[in-house]
Amino acid sequence: MSYATQMLDTYPRTFNIDAGLLASTIDALTDCAQACTADADDDLSEQNVAELVKCIRLCMDCADICTTTAGVISRQTDYDANVTRTMLDACAATCKSSGDECEQHAMMHGHCRVCAEACRRCERACRDLMAAMK
Amino acid sequence: MSYATQMLDTYPRTFNIDAGLLASTIDALTDCAQACTADADDDLSEQNVAELVKCIRLCMDCADICTTTAGVISRQTDYDANVTRTMLDACAATCKSSGDECEQHAMMHGHCRVCAEACRRCERACRDLMAAMK
Amino acid sequence: MSYATQMLDTYPRTFNIDAGLLASTIDALTDCAQACTADADDDLSEQNVAELVKCIRLCMDCADICTTTAGVISRQTDYDANVTRTMLDACAATCKSSGDECEQHAMMHGHCRVCAEACRRCERACRDLMAAMK
Amino acid sequence: MSYATQMLDTYPRTFNIDAGLLASTIDALTDCAQACTADADDDLSEQNVAELVKCIRLCMDCADICTTTAGVISRQTDYDANVTRTMLDACAATCKSSGDECEQHAMMHGHCRVCAEACRRCERACRDLMAAMK
Repeated sequence: MSYATQMLDTYPRTFNIDAGLLASTIDALTDCAQACTADADDDLSEQNVAELVKCIRLCMDCADICTTTAGVISRQTDYDANVTRTMLDACAATCKSSGDECEQHAMMHGHCRVCAEACRRCERACRDLMAAMK
Repeated sequence: MSYATQMLDTYPRTFNIDAGLLASTIDALTDCAQACTADADDDLSEQNVAELVKCIRLCMDCADICTTTAGVISRQTDYDANVTRTMLDACAATCKSSGDECEQHAMMHGHCRVCAEACRRCERACRDLMAAMK
Repeated sequence: MSYATQMLDTYPRTFNIDAGLLASTIDALTDCAQACTADADDDLSEQNVAELVKCIRLCMDCADICTTTAGVISRQTDYDANVTRTMLDACAATCKSSGDECEQHAMMHGHCRVCAEACRRCERACRDLMAAMK
Repeated sequence: MSYATQMLDTYPRTFNIDAGLLASTIDALTDCAQACTADADDDLSEQNVAELVKCIRLCMDCADICTTTAGVISRQTDYDANVTRTMLDACAATCKSSGDECEQHAMMHGHCRVCAEACRRCERACRDLMAAMK
Protein backbone atom coordinates (compact mmCIF):
# COMPACT_ATOMS: atom_id res chain seq x y z
CA MET A 1 0.00 0.00 0.00
CA SER A 2 1.58 3.27 -1.09
CA TYR A 3 2.16 6.15 1.30
CA ALA A 4 -0.29 8.24 -0.72
CA THR A 5 -2.98 5.68 0.14
CA GLN A 6 -1.90 5.34 3.79
CA MET A 7 -1.93 9.10 4.26
CA LEU A 8 -5.34 9.53 2.61
CA ASP A 9 -6.68 6.74 4.84
CA THR A 10 -5.70 8.75 7.93
CA TYR A 11 -6.85 12.17 6.67
CA PRO A 12 -8.93 13.77 9.46
CA ARG A 13 -11.74 15.15 7.25
CA THR A 14 -13.80 13.84 4.35
CA PHE A 15 -13.03 14.80 0.77
CA ASN A 16 -15.20 15.13 -2.28
CA ILE A 17 -13.13 12.99 -4.62
CA ASP A 18 -12.71 9.20 -4.69
CA ALA A 19 -9.72 8.42 -2.45
CA GLY A 20 -8.54 5.51 -4.65
CA LEU A 21 -8.47 7.69 -7.75
CA LEU A 22 -6.67 10.47 -5.88
CA ALA A 23 -4.04 8.10 -4.46
CA SER A 24 -3.36 6.47 -7.82
CA THR A 25 -2.94 9.90 -9.43
CA ILE A 26 -0.46 10.96 -6.73
CA ASP A 27 1.47 7.71 -7.28
CA ALA A 28 1.50 8.24 -11.07
CA LEU A 29 2.83 11.78 -10.55
CA THR A 30 5.56 10.63 -8.16
CA ASP A 31 6.57 7.82 -10.52
CA CYS A 32 6.68 10.17 -13.51
CA ALA A 33 8.76 12.73 -11.61
CA GLN A 34 11.26 10.00 -10.72
CA ALA A 35 11.36 8.62 -14.27
CA CYS A 36 11.91 12.09 -15.77
CA THR A 37 14.62 13.06 -13.27
CA ALA A 38 16.48 9.83 -14.04
CA ASP A 39 15.89 10.04 -17.80
CA ALA A 40 17.34 13.56 -18.04
CA ASP A 41 20.42 12.23 -16.27
CA ASP A 42 20.58 9.09 -18.41
CA ASP A 43 20.45 11.27 -21.52
CA LEU A 44 23.40 13.29 -20.20
CA SER A 45 25.38 10.03 -20.03
CA GLU A 46 24.68 9.06 -23.63
CA GLN A 47 27.27 9.57 -26.37
CA ASN A 48 24.67 11.25 -28.59
CA VAL A 49 23.76 13.78 -25.88
CA ALA A 50 23.53 16.59 -28.46
CA GLU A 51 20.55 14.80 -30.07
CA LEU A 52 18.83 14.43 -26.70
CA VAL A 53 18.78 18.10 -25.66
CA LYS A 54 15.04 18.50 -26.24
CA CYS A 55 14.38 15.31 -24.26
CA ILE A 56 16.53 16.55 -21.34
CA ARG A 57 14.80 19.90 -21.28
CA LEU A 58 11.27 18.48 -21.35
CA CYS A 59 12.12 15.87 -18.70
CA MET A 60 13.42 18.63 -16.43
CA ASP A 61 10.14 20.56 -16.84
CA CYS A 62 8.06 17.40 -16.41
CA ALA A 63 9.87 16.31 -13.22
CA ASP A 64 9.33 19.72 -11.60
CA ILE A 65 5.72 20.01 -12.71
CA CYS A 66 4.79 16.47 -11.59
CA THR A 67 6.36 17.04 -8.15
CA THR A 68 4.51 20.34 -7.76
CA THR A 69 1.22 18.82 -8.94
CA ALA A 70 1.59 15.91 -6.51
CA GLY A 71 1.96 18.47 -3.71
CA VAL A 72 -1.06 20.48 -4.83
CA ILE A 73 -3.43 17.50 -5.06
CA SER A 74 -2.06 15.98 -1.83
CA ARG A 75 -3.25 19.10 -0.01
CA GLN A 76 -6.96 18.58 0.62
CA THR A 77 -7.40 21.30 3.25
CA ASP A 78 -9.35 24.26 1.85
CA TYR A 79 -9.27 22.77 -1.63
CA ASP A 80 -9.25 25.39 -4.44
CA ALA A 81 -10.70 24.08 -7.71
CA ASN A 82 -9.00 26.72 -9.91
CA VAL A 83 -5.54 25.86 -8.64
CA THR A 84 -6.08 22.10 -8.92
CA ARG A 85 -7.69 22.16 -12.35
CA THR A 86 -5.14 24.46 -14.02
CA MET A 87 -2.21 22.53 -12.51
CA LEU A 88 -3.61 19.19 -13.69
CA ASP A 89 -4.07 20.75 -17.13
CA ALA A 90 -0.46 22.01 -17.21
CA CYS A 91 0.78 18.66 -15.97
CA ALA A 92 -1.16 16.67 -18.59
CA ALA A 93 0.15 18.98 -21.35
CA THR A 94 3.72 18.56 -20.14
CA CYS A 95 3.46 14.78 -19.80
CA LYS A 96 2.12 14.75 -23.39
CA SER A 97 5.11 16.75 -24.70
CA SER A 98 7.62 14.81 -22.65
CA GLY A 99 6.05 11.44 -23.52
CA ASP A 100 6.02 12.29 -27.25
CA GLU A 101 9.69 13.26 -27.15
CA CYS A 102 10.81 10.25 -25.09
CA GLU A 103 8.96 7.97 -27.50
CA GLN A 104 11.16 9.26 -30.34
CA HIS A 105 14.17 7.74 -28.57
CA ALA A 106 12.49 4.61 -27.16
CA MET A 107 13.93 2.26 -29.79
CA MET A 108 17.47 3.45 -29.15
CA HIS A 109 17.42 4.03 -25.38
CA GLY A 110 15.67 1.76 -22.87
CA HIS A 111 15.47 4.59 -20.31
CA CYS A 112 13.49 6.76 -22.75
CA ARG A 113 11.10 3.85 -23.34
CA VAL A 114 10.44 3.44 -19.61
CA CYS A 115 10.10 7.20 -19.17
CA ALA A 116 7.67 7.54 -22.10
CA GLU A 117 5.49 4.89 -20.46
CA ALA A 118 5.54 6.77 -17.12
CA CYS A 119 4.60 10.02 -18.91
CA ARG A 120 1.67 8.37 -20.75
CA ARG A 121 0.37 6.82 -17.55
CA CYS A 122 0.67 10.14 -15.69
CA GLU A 123 -1.03 12.12 -18.47
CA ARG A 124 -3.99 9.70 -18.33
CA ALA A 125 -4.13 9.90 -14.53
CA CYS A 126 -4.25 13.73 -14.63
CA ARG A 127 -7.00 13.70 -17.26
CA ASP A 128 -9.01 11.09 -15.32
CA LEU A 129 -8.80 13.15 -12.14
CA MET A 130 -9.86 16.30 -14.01
CA ALA A 131 -12.84 14.41 -15.47
CA ALA A 132 -13.83 13.16 -12.00
CA MET A 133 -13.70 16.72 -10.62
CA LYS A 134 -16.40 17.98 -12.96
CA MET B 1 20.74 44.09 -12.55
CA SER B 2 19.06 40.83 -11.54
CA TYR B 3 20.59 37.42 -12.27
CA ALA B 4 17.62 36.66 -14.54
CA THR B 5 18.70 39.63 -16.70
CA GLN B 6 22.41 38.79 -16.54
CA MET B 7 21.76 35.19 -17.55
CA LEU B 8 19.46 36.14 -20.43
CA ASP B 9 22.13 38.62 -21.62
CA THR B 10 24.62 35.77 -21.94
CA TYR B 11 22.26 33.19 -23.48
CA PRO B 12 24.04 31.68 -26.53
CA ARG B 13 21.07 31.71 -28.92
CA THR B 14 18.34 34.19 -29.83
CA PHE B 15 14.82 33.90 -28.39
CA ASN B 16 11.46 34.92 -29.73
CA ILE B 17 10.27 36.84 -26.72
CA ASP B 18 11.36 40.27 -25.42
CA ALA B 19 14.23 39.62 -22.98
CA GLY B 20 13.23 42.48 -20.67
CA LEU B 21 9.69 41.15 -20.31
CA LEU B 22 10.97 37.62 -19.73
CA ALA B 23 13.47 38.73 -17.08
CA SER B 24 10.91 40.84 -15.20
CA THR B 25 8.48 37.89 -15.19
CA ILE B 26 11.16 35.57 -13.78
CA ASP B 27 11.93 38.16 -11.09
CA ALA B 28 8.23 38.52 -10.22
CA LEU B 29 7.93 34.73 -9.91
CA THR B 30 11.00 34.44 -7.68
CA ASP B 31 9.78 37.32 -5.50
CA CYS B 32 6.33 35.79 -5.17
CA ALA B 33 7.75 32.37 -4.29
CA GLN B 34 9.83 33.97 -1.53
CA ALA B 35 6.91 36.06 -0.23
CA CYS B 36 4.60 33.01 -0.13
CA THR B 37 7.18 30.75 1.56
CA ALA B 38 7.72 33.39 4.25
CA ASP B 39 4.02 34.22 4.59
CA ALA B 40 3.03 30.59 5.21
CA ASP B 41 5.65 30.53 7.97
CA ASP B 42 4.57 33.90 9.37
CA ASP B 43 1.00 32.62 9.54
CA LEU B 44 2.20 29.59 11.52
CA SER B 45 3.67 32.00 14.07
CA GLU B 46 0.44 33.95 14.56
CA GLN B 47 -1.81 33.36 17.56
CA ASN B 48 -4.85 33.05 15.31
CA VAL B 49 -3.21 30.34 13.18
CA ALA B 50 -6.49 28.40 12.97
CA GLU B 51 -8.04 31.29 11.00
CA LEU B 52 -5.07 31.35 8.60
CA VAL B 53 -5.16 27.72 7.46
CA LYS B 54 -6.53 28.56 3.99
CA CYS B 55 -3.85 31.24 3.61
CA ILE B 56 -1.07 28.81 4.60
CA ARG B 57 -2.31 26.18 2.19
CA LEU B 58 -2.61 28.54 -0.79
CA CYS B 59 0.78 30.11 -0.05
CA MET B 60 2.37 26.64 -0.05
CA ASP B 61 0.83 25.89 -3.45
CA CYS B 62 1.76 29.32 -4.78
CA ALA B 63 5.39 29.09 -3.66
CA ASP B 64 5.86 25.70 -5.36
CA ILE B 65 4.05 26.74 -8.54
CA CYS B 66 5.96 30.04 -8.88
CA THR B 67 9.32 28.28 -8.43
CA THR B 68 8.39 25.65 -11.01
CA THR B 69 7.11 28.28 -13.46
CA ALA B 70 10.31 30.32 -13.06
CA GLY B 71 12.26 27.19 -14.00
CA VAL B 72 10.08 26.45 -17.03
CA ILE B 73 10.30 29.96 -18.51
CA SER B 74 14.01 30.23 -17.70
CA ARG B 75 14.61 27.26 -20.01
CA GLN B 76 14.68 28.67 -23.52
CA THR B 77 16.28 25.66 -25.21
CA ASP B 78 13.75 23.80 -27.37
CA TYR B 79 10.93 25.96 -26.07
CA ASP B 80 7.54 24.17 -25.94
CA ALA B 81 4.57 26.56 -26.17
CA ASN B 82 2.05 24.12 -24.62
CA VAL B 83 4.13 23.61 -21.49
CA THR B 84 4.85 27.33 -21.07
CA ARG B 85 1.31 28.54 -21.72
CA THR B 86 -0.46 26.06 -19.44
CA MET B 87 2.05 26.64 -16.62
CA LEU B 88 1.65 30.43 -16.88
CA ASP B 89 -2.11 29.90 -16.77
CA ALA B 90 -1.89 27.70 -13.65
CA CYS B 91 0.48 30.18 -12.04
CA ALA B 92 -1.76 33.18 -12.74
CA ALA B 93 -4.79 31.30 -11.34
CA THR B 94 -2.87 30.36 -8.19
CA CYS B 95 -1.51 33.89 -7.67
CA LYS B 96 -5.10 35.11 -7.99
CA SER B 97 -6.38 32.70 -5.32
CA SER B 98 -3.42 33.31 -3.04
CA GLY B 99 -3.56 37.09 -3.52
CA ASP B 100 -7.31 37.17 -2.78
CA GLU B 101 -6.84 35.18 0.41
CA CYS B 102 -3.81 37.19 1.62
CA GLU B 103 -5.75 40.40 1.02
CA GLN B 104 -8.39 39.22 3.51
CA HIS B 105 -5.74 39.35 6.24
CA ALA B 106 -3.82 42.42 5.03
CA MET B 107 -5.32 44.79 7.59
CA MET B 108 -4.43 42.52 10.48
CA HIS B 109 -1.08 41.12 9.33
CA GLY B 110 1.62 43.15 7.57
CA HIS B 111 3.17 39.99 6.08
CA CYS B 112 -0.12 39.11 4.36
CA ARG B 113 -0.27 42.65 2.91
CA VAL B 114 3.24 42.36 1.45
CA CYS B 115 2.49 38.85 0.16
CA ALA B 116 -0.78 39.93 -1.46
CA GLU B 117 1.12 42.63 -3.33
CA ALA B 118 3.72 40.11 -4.55
CA CYS B 119 0.92 37.78 -5.72
CA ARG B 120 -0.87 40.57 -7.63
CA ARG B 121 2.35 41.66 -9.33
CA CYS B 122 3.18 38.05 -10.26
CA GLU B 123 -0.31 37.35 -11.60
CA ARG B 124 -0.03 40.43 -13.86
CA ALA B 125 3.47 39.40 -15.00
CA CYS B 126 2.25 35.90 -15.97
CA ARG B 127 -0.72 37.33 -17.88
CA ASP B 128 1.50 39.89 -19.67
CA LEU B 129 3.92 37.19 -20.76
CA MET B 130 1.05 35.00 -22.00
CA ALA B 131 -0.30 37.95 -24.00
CA ALA B 132 3.14 38.61 -25.52
CA MET B 133 3.45 34.94 -26.57
CA LYS B 134 0.40 35.11 -28.81
CA MET C 1 9.24 -2.95 -9.66
CA SER C 2 9.56 0.76 -8.83
CA TYR C 3 10.48 3.34 -11.45
CA ALA C 4 13.70 4.05 -9.53
CA THR C 5 14.69 0.40 -10.16
CA GLN C 6 13.52 0.40 -13.78
CA MET C 7 15.45 3.57 -14.54
CA LEU C 8 18.64 2.32 -12.86
CA ASP C 9 18.33 -0.93 -14.86
CA THR C 10 18.44 1.06 -18.11
CA TYR C 11 21.20 3.51 -17.09
CA PRO C 12 23.75 3.60 -19.95
CA ARG C 13 26.91 3.52 -17.80
CA THR C 14 28.10 1.55 -14.78
CA PHE C 15 27.97 3.02 -11.27
CA ASN C 16 30.07 2.40 -8.20
CA ILE C 17 27.24 1.81 -5.77
CA ASP C 18 24.94 -1.20 -5.41
CA ALA C 19 21.91 -0.51 -7.64
CA GLY C 20 19.45 -2.22 -5.27
CA LEU C 21 20.58 -0.10 -2.33
CA LEU C 22 20.42 3.06 -4.43
CA ALA C 23 16.92 2.28 -5.72
CA SER C 24 15.57 1.46 -2.26
CA THR C 25 16.99 4.74 -0.91
CA ILE C 26 15.35 6.71 -3.72
CA ASP C 27 12.04 4.96 -2.97
CA ALA C 28 12.36 5.70 0.76
CA LEU C 29 13.02 9.38 -0.04
CA THR C 30 10.04 9.64 -2.38
CA ASP C 31 7.79 7.90 0.15
CA CYS C 32 8.95 10.20 2.94
CA ALA C 33 8.43 13.31 0.83
CA GLN C 34 4.87 12.19 0.09
CA ALA C 35 4.15 11.31 3.73
CA CYS C 36 5.49 14.67 4.96
CA THR C 37 3.60 16.70 2.34
CA ALA C 38 0.37 14.96 3.30
CA ASP C 39 1.05 15.11 7.05
CA ALA C 40 1.62 18.89 7.01
CA ASP C 41 -1.75 19.19 5.27
CA ASP C 42 -3.45 16.73 7.63
CA ASP C 43 -2.15 18.76 10.57
CA LEU C 44 -3.68 21.90 9.05
CA SER C 45 -7.06 20.10 9.07
CA GLU C 46 -6.89 19.17 12.75
CA GLN C 47 -8.78 21.16 15.38
CA ASN C 48 -5.65 21.43 17.53
CA VAL C 49 -3.63 22.92 14.66
CA ALA C 50 -1.94 25.39 17.05
CA GLU C 51 -0.27 22.45 18.83
CA LEU C 52 0.95 21.01 15.54
CA VAL C 53 2.86 24.05 14.24
CA LYS C 54 6.29 22.52 14.87
CA CYS C 55 5.18 19.32 13.13
CA ILE C 56 3.91 21.25 10.10
CA ARG C 57 7.12 23.25 9.84
CA LEU C 58 9.42 20.22 10.08
CA CYS C 59 7.29 18.23 7.61
CA MET C 60 7.56 21.09 5.10
CA ASP C 61 11.35 21.09 5.44
CA CYS C 62 11.51 17.30 5.29
CA ALA C 63 9.35 17.05 2.16
CA ASP C 64 11.52 19.58 0.29
CA ILE C 65 14.80 18.06 1.46
CA CYS C 66 13.75 14.47 0.62
CA THR C 67 12.64 15.50 -2.88
CA THR C 68 15.90 17.36 -3.48
CA THR C 69 17.98 14.47 -2.12
CA ALA C 70 16.12 11.98 -4.35
CA GLY C 71 17.05 14.18 -7.33
CA VAL C 72 20.71 14.42 -6.30
CA ILE C 73 21.22 10.68 -5.82
CA SER C 74 19.20 9.84 -8.95
CA ARG C 75 21.79 11.77 -10.97
CA GLN C 76 24.68 9.38 -11.49
CA THR C 77 26.40 11.29 -14.29
CA ASP C 78 29.62 12.93 -13.07
CA TYR C 79 28.86 11.95 -9.51
CA ASP C 80 30.23 14.41 -6.90
CA ALA C 81 30.88 12.79 -3.51
CA ASN C 82 30.81 16.07 -1.54
CA VAL C 83 27.37 17.02 -2.81
CA THR C 84 25.91 13.54 -2.24
CA ARG C 85 27.41 13.00 1.20
CA THR C 86 26.44 16.40 2.65
CA MET C 87 22.89 16.15 1.24
CA LEU C 88 22.41 12.66 2.68
CA ASP C 89 23.67 14.01 6.01
CA ALA C 90 21.22 16.95 5.93
CA CYS C 91 18.40 14.61 4.90
CA ALA C 92 19.11 12.11 7.69
CA ALA C 93 19.22 14.96 10.26
CA THR C 94 15.91 16.35 9.01
CA CYS C 95 14.19 12.94 8.95
CA LYS C 96 15.40 12.49 12.56
CA SER C 97 13.88 15.83 13.65
CA SER C 98 10.69 15.30 11.69
CA GLY C 99 10.34 11.67 12.84
CA ASP C 100 10.86 12.66 16.50
CA GLU C 101 8.22 15.36 16.26
CA CYS C 102 5.67 13.20 14.40
CA GLU C 103 6.14 10.48 16.99
CA GLN C 104 4.97 12.90 19.69
CA HIS C 105 1.57 13.03 17.98
CA ALA C 106 1.38 9.40 16.83
CA MET C 107 -1.01 8.30 19.56
CA MET C 108 -3.46 11.09 18.79
CA HIS C 109 -3.18 11.29 14.99
CA GLY C 110 -2.88 8.27 12.69
CA HIS C 111 -1.32 10.41 9.94
CA CYS C 112 1.53 11.41 12.26
CA ARG C 113 2.13 7.75 13.11
CA VAL C 114 2.39 6.79 9.42
CA CYS C 115 4.60 9.82 8.73
CA ALA C 116 6.92 9.05 11.67
CA GLU C 117 7.42 5.56 10.28
CA ALA C 118 8.25 6.95 6.81
CA CYS C 119 10.77 9.38 8.38
CA ARG C 120 12.48 6.61 10.39
CA ARG C 121 12.77 4.38 7.34
CA CYS C 122 14.15 7.25 5.25
CA GLU C 123 16.67 8.27 7.90
CA ARG C 124 17.97 4.68 8.01
CA ALA C 125 18.12 4.51 4.20
CA CYS C 126 20.17 7.73 4.02
CA ARG C 127 22.58 6.48 6.69
CA ASP C 128 22.94 3.07 5.00
CA LEU C 129 23.75 4.71 1.68
CA MET C 130 26.31 7.01 3.33
CA ALA C 131 27.93 3.97 4.97
CA ALA C 132 28.08 2.15 1.63
CA MET C 133 29.75 5.16 -0.02
CA LYS C 134 32.77 5.00 2.26
CA MET D 1 14.24 46.35 -0.76
CA SER D 2 13.99 42.62 -1.50
CA TYR D 3 10.94 40.55 -0.55
CA ALA D 4 13.13 38.53 1.82
CA THR D 5 13.77 41.78 3.73
CA GLN D 6 10.15 42.95 3.57
CA MET D 7 8.88 39.62 4.85
CA LEU D 8 11.40 39.46 7.70
CA ASP D 9 10.42 43.03 8.64
CA THR D 10 6.81 41.89 9.12
CA TYR D 11 7.57 38.58 10.90
CA PRO D 12 5.32 38.42 14.00
CA ARG D 13 7.93 37.10 16.44
CA THR D 14 11.56 37.90 17.23
CA PHE D 15 14.39 35.75 15.89
CA ASN D 16 17.84 35.01 17.24
CA ILE D 17 19.78 35.81 14.10
CA ASP D 18 20.57 39.21 12.54
CA ALA D 19 17.73 39.95 10.10
CA GLY D 20 20.00 41.71 7.60
CA LEU D 21 22.35 38.74 7.41
CA LEU D 22 19.43 36.33 7.07
CA ALA D 23 17.80 38.38 4.29
CA SER D 24 21.05 38.73 2.32
CA THR D 25 21.62 34.96 2.57
CA ILE D 26 18.11 34.24 1.29
CA ASP D 27 18.72 36.65 -1.61
CA ALA D 28 22.08 35.01 -2.42
CA LEU D 29 20.38 31.59 -2.45
CA THR D 30 17.54 32.76 -4.71
CA ASP D 31 20.02 34.44 -7.08
CA CYS D 32 22.19 31.33 -7.22
CA ALA D 33 19.20 29.07 -7.88
CA GLN D 34 18.18 31.31 -10.78
CA ALA D 35 21.73 31.50 -12.19
CA CYS D 36 22.16 27.70 -12.02
CA THR D 37 18.75 26.96 -13.58
CA ALA D 38 19.58 29.31 -16.47
CA ASP D 39 23.18 28.11 -16.80
CA ALA D 40 22.16 24.45 -17.13
CA ASP D 41 19.83 25.53 -19.92
CA ASP D 42 22.45 27.76 -21.55
CA ASP D 43 24.86 24.83 -21.56
CA LEU D 44 22.24 22.70 -23.33
CA SER D 45 22.15 25.34 -26.09
CA GLU D 46 25.92 25.31 -26.66
CA GLN D 47 27.47 23.42 -29.56
CA ASN D 48 29.99 21.77 -27.23
CA VAL D 49 27.23 20.46 -24.94
CA ALA D 50 29.06 17.12 -24.52
CA GLU D 51 31.90 18.95 -22.74
CA LEU D 52 29.44 20.70 -20.42
CA VAL D 53 27.68 17.62 -19.00
CA LYS D 54 29.35 17.90 -15.59
CA CYS D 55 28.43 21.60 -15.45
CA ILE D 56 24.78 20.87 -16.31
CA ARG D 57 24.55 18.15 -13.68
CA LEU D 58 26.08 20.24 -10.89
CA CYS D 59 23.95 23.27 -11.80
CA MET D 60 20.81 21.11 -11.59
CA ASP D 61 21.82 19.93 -8.10
CA CYS D 62 22.81 23.44 -7.04
CA ALA D 63 19.54 25.02 -8.22
CA ASP D 64 17.44 22.47 -6.28
CA ILE D 65 19.59 22.67 -3.15
CA CYS D 66 19.64 26.50 -3.10
CA THR D 67 15.84 26.66 -3.49
CA THR D 68 15.35 24.13 -0.70
CA THR D 69 17.84 25.90 1.57
CA ALA D 70 16.13 29.27 0.96
CA GLY D 71 12.87 27.64 2.09
CA VAL D 72 14.43 26.12 5.20
CA ILE D 73 16.07 29.34 6.42
CA SER D 74 13.00 31.42 5.51
CA ARG D 75 11.02 29.34 8.01
CA GLN D 76 11.75 30.84 11.41
CA THR D 77 8.88 29.21 13.29
CA ASP D 78 10.14 26.47 15.63
CA TYR D 79 13.64 26.79 14.25
CA ASP D 80 15.63 23.52 14.32
CA ALA D 81 19.41 24.04 14.44
CA ASN D 82 20.30 20.57 13.11
CA VAL D 83 18.19 20.97 9.99
CA THR D 84 19.46 24.50 9.28
CA ARG D 85 23.12 23.76 9.92
CA THR D 86 23.33 20.56 7.86
CA MET D 87 21.41 22.15 4.95
CA LEU D 88 23.70 25.20 4.93
CA ASP D 89 26.66 22.81 4.95
CA ALA D 90 25.28 20.82 2.01
CA CYS D 91 24.48 24.04 0.16
CA ALA D 92 27.96 25.51 0.69
CA ALA D 93 29.56 22.24 -0.52
CA THR D 94 27.38 22.20 -3.62
CA CYS D 95 27.99 25.88 -4.44
CA LYS D 96 31.73 25.11 -4.14
CA SER D 97 31.52 22.19 -6.60
CA SER D 98 29.25 24.07 -8.97
CA GLY D 99 31.32 27.27 -8.77
CA ASP D 100 34.57 25.36 -9.43
CA GLU D 101 33.06 23.67 -12.48
CA CYS D 102 31.48 26.84 -13.90
CA GLU D 103 34.81 28.65 -13.50
CA GLN D 104 36.43 26.10 -15.84
CA HIS D 105 34.15 27.37 -18.62
CA ALA D 106 34.10 31.07 -17.68
CA MET D 107 36.57 32.16 -20.38
CA MET D 108 34.57 30.45 -23.10
CA HIS D 109 30.99 31.06 -21.92
CA GLY D 110 29.75 34.31 -20.36
CA HIS D 111 26.84 32.50 -18.68
CA CYS D 112 29.25 30.19 -16.83
CA ARG D 113 31.21 33.23 -15.66
CA VAL D 114 28.07 34.89 -14.25
CA CYS D 115 26.95 31.60 -12.69
CA ALA D 116 30.36 30.96 -11.08
CA GLU D 117 30.15 34.38 -9.46
CA ALA D 118 26.64 33.65 -8.11
CA CYS D 119 27.87 30.30 -6.71
CA ARG D 120 30.88 31.91 -4.98
CA ARG D 121 28.71 34.61 -3.43
CA CYS D 122 26.16 32.03 -2.25
CA GLU D 123 28.82 29.74 -0.78
CA ARG D 124 30.20 32.68 1.23
CA ALA D 125 26.70 33.67 2.39
CA CYS D 126 25.97 30.12 3.62
CA ARG D 127 29.29 29.96 5.49
CA ASP D 128 28.74 33.43 7.03
CA LEU D 129 25.30 32.43 8.27
CA MET D 130 26.66 29.17 9.73
CA ALA D 131 29.37 31.15 11.53
CA ALA D 132 26.79 33.59 12.94
CA MET D 133 24.68 30.67 14.22
CA LYS D 134 27.45 29.40 16.52
